[in-house]
Amino acid sequence: MNATPPPNQVFIGTFIHCRALDELEYLHGTAVFVDGPTGKIVAVERECGHSGRLEETFTKLGWSSAEVKIHDTTTTTTTTTAGTAGKAGGEGKDVSFFFPGFIDTHIHASQYPNVGIFGKSTLLDWLNTYTFPLEASLAKDLAKARRVYGRCVRRTLSHGTTTAAYYATIDVAATNLLLDICLARGQRALVGRVCMDEPRTCPPWYADESAAQTLSRTRECVAHARMRDPRGDTVRPIVTPRFAPSCTPAAMRALGDLARGEGLAVQTHVSENKGEIELVHAMFPGESAGGRGYAGVYDAFGLLGERTILAHGVHLSEAEAELLRARGSKVSHCPCSNSAITSGAAPVRWLLEKGIDVGLGTDVSGGYSPSVLEAARQASLVSRHVAMGGDDRAKLSVEEVLYLATRGGAKCVGLEARVGGFEVGMEWDAQLVRLGGVGDGDDEGVDEGNVDVFGWESWEEMVAKWLFNGDDRNTRKVWVKGRLVHERV
Amino acid sequence: MNATPPPNQVFIGTFIHCRALDELEYLHGTAVFVDGPTGKIVAVERECGHSGRLEETFTKLGWSSAEVKIHDTTTTTTTTTAGTAGKAGGEGKDVSFFFPGFIDTHIHASQYPNVGIFGKSTLLDWLNTYTFPLEASLAKDLAKARRVYGRCVRRTLSHGTTTAAYYATIDVAATNLLLDICLARGQRALVGRVCMDEPRTCPPWYADESAAQTLSRTRECVAHARMRDPRGDTVRPIVTPRFAPSCTPAAMRALGDLARGEGLAVQTHVSENKGEIELVHAMFPGESAGGRGYAGVYDAFGLLGERTILAHGVHLSEAEAELLRARGSKVSHCPCSNSAITSGAAPVRWLLEKGIDVGLGTDVSGGYSPSVLEAARQASLVSRHVAMGGDDRAKLSVEEVLYLATRGGAKCVGLEARVGGFEVGMEWDAQLVRLGGVGDGDDEGVDEGNVDVFGWESWEEMVAKWLFNGDDRNTRKVWVKGRLVHERV
Repeated sequence: MNATPPPNQVFIGTFIHCRALDELEYLHGTAVFVDGPTGKIVAVERECGHSGRLEETFTKLGWSSAEVKIHDTTTTTTTTTAGTAGKAGGEGKDVSFFFPGFIDTHIHASQYPNVGIFGKSTLLDWLNTYTFPLEASLAKDLAKARRVYGRCVRRTLSHGTTTAAYYATIDVAATNLLLDICLARGQRALVGRVCMDEPRTCPPWYADESAAQTLSRTRECVAHARMRDPRGDTVRPIVTPRFAPSCTPAAMRALGDLARGEGLAVQTHVSENKGEIELVHAMFPGESAGGRGYAGVYDAFGLLGERTILAHGVHLSEAEAELLRARGSKVSHCPCSNSAITSGAAPVRWLLEKGIDVGLGTDVSGGYSPSVLEAARQASLVSRHVAMGGDDRAKLSVEEVLYLATRGGAKCVGLEARVGGFEVGMEWDAQLVRLGGVGDGDDEGVDEGNVDVFGWESWEEMVAKWLFNGDDRNTRKVWVKGRLVHERV
Repeated sequence: MNATPPPNQVFIGTFIHCRALDELEYLHGTAVFVDGPTGKIVAVERECGHSGRLEETFTKLGWSSAEVKIHDTTTTTTTTTAGTAGKAGGEGKDVSFFFPGFIDTHIHASQYPNVGIFGKSTLLDWLNTYTFPLEASLAKDLAKARRVYGRCVRRTLSHGTTTAAYYATIDVAATNLLLDICLARGQRALVGRVCMDEPRTCPPWYADESAAQTLSRTRECVAHARMRDPRGDTVRPIVTPRFAPSCTPAAMRALGDLARGEGLAVQTHVSENKGEIELVHAMFPGESAGGRGYAGVYDAFGLLGERTILAHGVHLSEAEAELLRARGSKVSHCPCSNSAITSGAAPVRWLLEKGIDVGLGTDVSGGYSPSVLEAARQASLVSRHVAMGGDDRAKLSVEEVLYLATRGGAKCVGLEARVGGFEVGMEWDAQLVRLGGVGDGDDEGVDEGNVDVFGWESWEEMVAKWLFNGDDRNTRKVWVKGRLVHERV
């Protein structure tokens, strides 16, 4: 399915990645060596530049230098002279750096055409008004599904998303199609068929007919994924009960058993909206009783493990947070969505301090943007709305939201040993970011994105500028496992 | 200074503008006729298309059809067939429409290089850490000022800002330069020299030396503006006491007298941040006493009139709001800034219901983006954070935030009779917006912006998509008073 593996490659320039939650590491004049067949980083040489020292490493790695593809970003852009302060002349040159690919821990590919369309709705009416009709239309029409999924994967790659945890629809064929598109495009993905069989809440025209059908359809998608990518190197299936209110107890129990039995990850929603939480308590009085809450419902059916991604977690109780921590379950923070459909402001600092792993989700189309950079930006802003409530510590820094977008997300999808940073042994899932320099002419580079570098900024300031004004125009190239999967020419 | 006036022009296609706070009007197949010398709209013909009916209007207007410049957007894009629902094939064509130019009612041009740079600061430390040093550096260096202001005006035009209320620096020459740049570029602007003479709060290296100097320097800028554009058709001076804490009572009184005597508009800040409010109460115990508050301080010095634009108004009391309403003063809502530097969530619905006119401000660089579309998007999201506090009515709709960005802003800058809509007698300050259609190929048009039109969306939905995923790539052309001031090729 994949093209011929790329040759051995070396990337030269500035590399920025997260060393800890609140710390970015800046590696200037560095060379990163990527093995062709595996896409793995096999060497990182600091202060390497593009001198004869490359040859030494080639020899050490047993590479023939004639066959290495060299990506040298230092020849065309400034990567080491920034940070000299205060000059006014036209020294604002383009600045390039490599950054780990983004990880979107929660996105409904099937809802992509609805981005930005939510009116004044909140979760439950939003589902019925906007979401179910669109998803149902895709489930019935593979040509439409191909158009929507193709565009969604194309767009997320252009935003630097190298890994995504997707919800598709209830339809087996369309879900399999989404997985095939990710594989063909080279995007790392967890792809889930949406499970929903509860007749009290699901529309009759868009639901599984029984818990048995929920299970059998899910098994079909798991089998397809394993046929396409047996080791799950690029794409994997993920068990996806939509959310507790749309699933019968029998379905959730069956899905929990399936996940445990087959070693599969699980994704679902939790505590997004207050009306939803009341509904869960009303529908699952036993499972949620005694303070076990909404999260306790999933736990009761064996769906809460360390490979479970719970989207939102806006209104979790102390007891629920403790349960998540104990189970090692992850939270996908979706700030664009939570603001847009007025779900609430998630207390991310509180979750992190509880010891819960948190990543970012675009939550298309509750969220209005398929960009993880936009999600990171909104995570920063939403954390300030939490801080307005009185706790200044709630604020998330530039470094922290970029951590959530990369390392944090990698933990959520269980790939923290493989992606999210530039260490030997990890795979080359990366983006080349370019920020435009402001010359003396007003017009120069104005069409190449909204980040303007005047030349006196520090690296920390340039990264902040990227976070707050960057977009897909700044993401010049994107690689997954060493393979170039997007390029902006 | 301006180029030769453009010829008579007719624009044909779909026009969208605000009819009321919560209502957009969609004029399809319409022709708008713009007089060359004045830039005024002289006729609007509904259902005109591009048939012989144009000739009738030309005759009525006494125009020679050979000399009319025709901008027909219906020949290259779909403007009337959208809204047919549910088809899947590749019928997502590009969609174009004309929209009124945006009005930025609060922007510090001198802070443009700092967009996105604010760390975890709040207002008062942000001023000292980031703002004053940059402004001071521009005040001393005209080459740097030219580079910064040139880029800022270039950028705001590219985002569709046809009118901006600018703060420059304390420097006379640099302030005059900003006004000259706006005039040369053709952007409508109110340009204010920043007044700050209070030694207790202003850094000694960045302040007027006395109230007398504050007044004389301001008069110099007013004189320059009137020399350049005597009738203020394009650019005007605006009296700009930075904010109460940075001005002495003598300076504020002198500026109030100047504004009244010369018929000038006034701009300043009010009730942005709680620490700032406490400072105002401490510095102006008399003026703010008896519930008159922060707004009362400006009123005491004659600075509160119907031509006064007050940025922020996040924490106004009932009495202050009543004072604003009584004086007819305007509020510039700056949601990006208020979230970024954790000032608070402004209660816009409450202000509107008090009868106060509200516009949008980017507040660069407290705000991280020079785009009014981004400000409108954040106004929507911030209003939802207000609604999370319990009042669902606080939510602002797509229509409402676009009203604030156009008609609301026009009221703030006193130009509501001239700009903000497409009516006969108004001037042609407009932008041509294009949204990209999704064809059957995944790649088509992916580089032309992030709005994807699949072809089944209603016009209301397409406008929502533009609001939430649009950027400067969608703003293809921008005109001020009939003159083309920006074009994306």
